Amino acid sequence: MVRLLSLKKLLMVYFVMSTGALLWLILNFGLFCDTSSKEEETLLTKTKDLRQWEERLRRRERDLLKKPQEDANLPTIYAIMPTHTRHVQKAELTRLAQTFLHVKNFHWILVEDSDSQTDLVTRFLASCGIKYTHLNIKTPENYQLKETDPNWLKPRGVEQRNVGLQWLRENLDLDRDRGVVYFADDDNTYSLQLFDEMRHTRGVSVWPVGLVGGMRFERPVVEHGKVVRWYTYWRPERPFAIDMAGFAVNLQLILENRQVKFELRVRRGYLESSLLQHLVTMDELEPLADNCTKVLVWHTRTEKPKMKQENFLIQAGRPSDPRIEV
Amino acid sequence: MVRLLSLKKLLMVYFVMSTGALLWLILNFGLFCDTSSKEEETLLTKTKDLRQWEERLRRRERDLLKKPQEDANLPTIYAIMPTHTRHVQKAELTRLAQTFLHVKNFHWILVEDSDSQTDLVTRFLASCGIKYTHLNIKTPENYQLKETDPNWLKPRGVEQRNVGLQWLRENLDLDRDRGVVYFADDDNTYSLQLFDEMRHTRGVSVWPVGLVGGMRFERPVVEHGKVVRWYTYWRPERPFAIDMAGFAVNLQLILENRQVKFELRVRRGYLESSLLQHLVTMDELEPLADNCTKVLVWHTRTEKPKMKQENFLIQAGRPSDPRIEV
Repeated sequence: MVRLLSLKKLLMVYFVMSTGALLWLILNFGLFCDTSSKEEETLLTKTKDLRQWEERLRRRERDLLKKPQEDANLPTIYAIMPTHTRHVQKAELTRLAQTFLHVKNFHWILVEDSDSQTDLVTRFLASCGIKYTHLNIKTPENYQLKETDPNWLKPRGVEQRNVGLQWLRENLDLDRDRGVVYFADDDNTYSLQLFDEMRHTRGVSVWPVGLVGGMRFERPVVEHGKVVRWYTYWRPERPFAIDMAGFAVNLQLILENRQVKFELRVRRGYLESSLLQHLVTMDELEPLADNCTKVLVWHTRTEKPKMKQENFLIQAGRPSDPRIEV
Repeated sequence: MVRLLSLKKLLMVYFVMSTGALLWLILNFGLFCDTSSKEEETLLTKTKDLRQWEERLRRRERDLLKKPQEDANLPTIYAIMPTHTRHVQKAELTRLAQTFLHVKNFHWILVEDSDSQTDLVTRFLASCGIKYTHLNIKTPENYQLKETDPNWLKPRGVEQRNVGLQWLRENLDLDRDRGVVYFADDDNTYSLQLFDEMRHTRGVSVWPVGLVGGMRFERPVVEHGKVVRWYTYWRPERPFAIDMAGFAVNLQLILENRQVKFELRVRRGYLESSLLQHLVTMDELEPLADNCTKVLVWHTRTEKPKMKQENFLIQAGRPSDPRIEV
């Protein structure tokens, strides 16, 4: 009886202990399970993070390989540029393309002043490596500059810029496309920083232009973050006394105001104003380039090359080989 | 006894089952621990991989930004370029840098025509992203072009190019360094293909130049793979009737012939010949650019900007803000 009782006691003790141990294990197991599921959650989050990281890296790698580098998160810069046939045209387009190749999300809208698109420009654009649209429109006869006219006599590139605006309105979508519109010239010089500055224009942004108006620079004068007047010698009272190279317009503004364009019949120096006064007030202008204190674009002009010897040869009936494109 | 025995049996069964359960729990407990740490290990490995990938991308991005992209297998292009202070200088250097940024293994040797290195050029070079050497030498008084002189009257950039050659000879090694030397101008226009063409010059290579000598182009005329004469209107009988922009010289030739340089006292149009005749014969010239039938460089010239309004302001004692660099 004592043995049985002690056996019974032993078994009871074992029963209690093993049950305790079981309970402890189950509890702990449960706890560990909890911990484990918490850990698993952490692991899942981590896995998700890593997957997102991996996706980012993959996108970055793809961007690095692509040139001109595209970045879906950046607004596009639409550069409307009039151009006309002349000896230096291919040289000018060549060095401009080298500039634009450095700029992300860049769309070159090149508008020839001609009745049809020339072979030279067509071939050039096809191989330039930049996203482009090739347009053309001939300037009306009575608005063409004559050989002997000073270059400021008549506004130039008006019809070409307007055709560029028309293309934007016919091909881009107010809801889908984000961008900024810039009116570029085919002999100006552009720093790369200029494009970084203008890209996030909300309405109309402005900045200084170098070597223009007979001065080292013209610029909007900024006080307390607002443009208050124009630093220019000639007619500072103009509504927007600013060169074509000195401002950019948000694409939305261009698409929303479908009738706004450059006026062909306009007083000298008022071409820029003829567009801008319908889009913005001076008070709303966004000053860039360190409050308009840095020159990031220059109104350079390329000399018309002398062709004296070429003309001798033409007169002598021995012109240079026309198959060699210059 | 039956009750005791059945109690004993019951306890034994319970003992076996609980022990089994315990063992199962312990095993599973262990297993769960294992799984968790294995997953963590996988994540850690993955994190390490991604970190390495990111580091690779970061390095590549840095390399891309620090264009010119370097490639140890390619010879270096040493471009010796004279430059002088003028209104359009920064604009010219800006667009040239944008060209050169596209060229691999490019070393810009910029030589100012001045007694000391200017702040503008020093600052510009420091931030241009191109490998460079900044030198300076003032053209001797009696060789300087006067404001009213036509630009062809005196050879320009002679001393500057010679200082560039001297730098090559003092700093490069005949056995170690492979490259090609090109004499660039700070207003010419260069296609990117030009640099690909010239890079593997063995002795002296030649090609056409656009918009030079009063013609659409000048060029070496090639027959059966050899240069036989010069297509130029003016003095085609010159030993090398070619513009400075139309040839490149293997670095080795420059380093081996340590005394060869441009002659300051030389008849108009003979500057290029003054160097080349000591390095090569016409027969040895390597014609590039599709047997000298493609124009890949243009002798463009930038207009001197009119500063009429700026001068009014200076006379009125109100010059434009000198802190704004143009």
